[in-house]
Amino acid sequence: MRADTPASVRELDEKDPLKDFRARFTLPPGVIYLDGNSLGAMPKVTVPRLDEVVRREWGEGLIRSWNDCDWVGAPRRVGDKIAALIGAREGEVVVADSTSVNLFKLLMAAMSARSERKVILSEAGNFPTDLYVAQGIAALSPGISVRTVATDDLLEAISDDVAVLLLTHVHYKTGHKHDMARFTRRAHECGALTLWDLSHSTGAVEIDLGAVGADLAIGCGYKYLNGGPGAPAFLYVASRLQKELRSPITGWFGHSEPFAFSGDYQPASDINRFLSGTPPILGLMALEVGVDLLCEAPGAQLYRKSQALCSRFIEWTEPCREFGLTLVTSRDPDARGSHVSLRHPDGYPIVQALIAEGIIGDFRGPDILRFGFAPLYLSFAEVWHAAASLREVLATRRWDDSRFRTRARVT
Amino acid sequence: MRADTPASVRELDEKDPLKDFRARFTLPPGVIYLDGNSLGAMPKVTVPRLDEVVRREWGEGLIRSWNDCDWVGAPRRVGDKIAALIGAREGEVVVADSTSVNLFKLLMAAMSARSERKVILSEAGNFPTDLYVAQGIAALSPGISVRTVATDDLLEAISDDVAVLLLTHVHYKTGHKHDMARFTRRAHECGALTLWDLSHSTGAVEIDLGAVGADLAIGCGYKYLNGGPGAPAFLYVASRLQKELRSPITGWFGHSEPFAFSGDYQPASDINRFLSGTPPILGLMALEVGVDLLCEAPGAQLYRKSQALCSRFIEWTEPCREFGLTLVTSRDPDARGSHVSLRHPDGYPIVQALIAEGIIGDFRGPDILRFGFAPLYLSFAEVWHAAASLREVLATRRWDDSRFRTRARVT
Repeated sequence: MRADTPASVRELDEKDPLKDFRARFTLPPGVIYLDGNSLGAMPKVTVPRLDEVVRREWGEGLIRSWNDCDWVGAPRRVGDKIAALIGAREGEVVVADSTSVNLFKLLMAAMSARSERKVILSEAGNFPTDLYVAQGIAALSPGISVRTVATDDLLEAISDDVAVLLLTHVHYKTGHKHDMARFTRRAHECGALTLWDLSHSTGAVEIDLGAVGADLAIGCGYKYLNGGPGAPAFLYVASRLQKELRSPITGWFGHSEPFAFSGDYQPASDINRFLSGTPPILGLMALEVGVDLLCEAPGAQLYRKSQALCSRFIEWTEPCREFGLTLVTSRDPDARGSHVSLRHPDGYPIVQALIAEGIIGDFRGPDILRFGFAPLYLSFAEVWHAAASLREVLATRRWDDSRFRTRARVT
Repeated sequence: MRADTPASVRELDEKDPLKDFRARFTLPPGVIYLDGNSLGAMPKVTVPRLDEVVRREWGEGLIRSWNDCDWVGAPRRVGDKIAALIGAREGEVVVADSTSVNLFKLLMAAMSARSERKVILSEAGNFPTDLYVAQGIAALSPGISVRTVATDDLLEAISDDVAVLLLTHVHYKTGHKHDMARFTRRAHECGALTLWDLSHSTGAVEIDLGAVGADLAIGCGYKYLNGGPGAPAFLYVASRLQKELRSPITGWFGHSEPFAFSGDYQPASDINRFLSGTPPILGLMALEVGVDLLCEAPGAQLYRKSQALCSRFIEWTEPCREFGLTLVTSRDPDARGSHVSLRHPDGYPIVQALIAEGIIGDFRGPDILRFGFAPLYLSFAEVWHAAASLREVLATRRWDDSRFRTRARVT
């Protein structure tokens, strides 16, 4: 390991300007949680806030809370808070549905707005649901096709027949971060729209949709936003495109006057046109707690700490290389997100052996060990300890045990 | 009023076999809640159950709870419980998304499966989101059109060009209940599929999808199922149709192996193919509490009480007719759902004046006063009191006050 010592690591934590946020999350004793990129930890305030929503707002307020507690305004209100985290403006983000459904809505809307072009361009190995949804749209729409190319060939593959460039900002498996500005510029030169999946970056990696001139984006509420399991997702549509694009799912909450109960659909003139059904209030309120907490942390501190945690983990796991572990994620902090992936042919049992010791990362087939570093609640000491444990598990071959090979339903 | 007296009404409550369920809901003091058809009341168990889900399952279990607490199985598990309430079989119902999104998925799937036909037939004045979603699909798909006809002309309008008959079982405004068996039979004679919106009937009105041979259905989780504001919705696809129909929104949870992370979409062979994104766990768990409670009540008792509450309300509000109030809903218990609608040109301020007295119904423009009767937690005494208050408000013209005319955002 490098020259760090427990004392020098302690010093890193003492100097961490975000260190006080840790106490505002519940994390079980004996656990080092390196899977906040999959499901974020629980903010302590979520418990009393949800209790209030359920007991007072629903239980006592009943139907009146749609007005009295502004449930009806929640998709926009929480959306505006998320906008501040991703460089969007007020009225450009709304919370709704799942990431998959939001992707479907925006991709359908974009393909329809660029109907003279028929190609959805994406990255081979993009997060499955992104490719699946794109494939589903191609199956629905005569002539539309999904073109996937290798990461290194993406920029050149943006051509005049591409309607939409669909990319995930930070790759779920490799941790590779795309240069959003560069891809957006190139897409616009070719007359294509961009649709960014921000699931693995929002809340941990700097994003400035406005500065890069991004067109469309979607993202997840349950990773670094700490909104809880299956939290509602968000979507972003640049103001200049809102009038032009129409959601294919024309549910009543996307209507210009949902409570006029008129017989004909008239889309809202603003971002609300991308809402569909009744907003999921419990999920929205839990998400708001997570987003509020994140909004308290200065972005620059957050992103710097994310990079530092990843860098240290990469350094501190150097000694693991001798046991056949290779680094997948870039060493360049600007070329990666907030998780680090390592490769090992026995990745699955190694991850299980670590989980048995309370160090929770996850596995992505066929051979990726994935460790996420949520800057709001992780300490350098935890990362140090996790790296040491990984080395120990490998050195002792403690992972080589049949009980670590049983596959769970969800990995 | 009829010959009932406070004593005879008390007797009705004493003889009510469901009377003990009332104590299992939280209802605020001073409120008679006749809007459970819009947002159901809160089961008391929801509070500790959600606390457990948040604190223990999410906070402590973290990502592990997808397996350890069977979060991944929740959409099917809760779906199977709902199946028991609507005469469906295991594996025919799943909980997902919102009612609007589920309608979009099933209607798109059905239109695609009957692509030689181009007409979606529905009822003029059907619940707006149903018509909006159908209109949205027509706008996406060349040649498809939405045909809406008056209620009385519906049966005859089912012709050989109809792909899907889209009806709401109980009308949100009038309370009229369609004869599901008759419409299904006629649709099948003409080679059309049926898609029933069960939002205003599930949990309060007898439904037997299996017996009538229904094809497709959707329904709402936050009305009589008491799942909480914006609860996830459900969808039903008859077993015989599951292989044939494909969801247009091909998110990862609809894949045959979501956690294989393969690059190509392969729909699940069963009802799971109609899932799309990550399931909303908080909403699902709250919904499960409501559904469990409903499953404890014998259906026959539930539906009989619903009919009795509505009948009594109609009788007890007879004296209101002299103040210009007319009955919209049928007097025939078998021809209506679990809410009663009355018409008055000053419906809006009358409803607001009642709400000011703690009697919560709602208003549907231009002139409908709507009162819902959730059989699980309402007493005959409450209905008696509500009828008396309505008469009082009308007789004294207490509603004729400018403060009752201010329109709220959500009505």
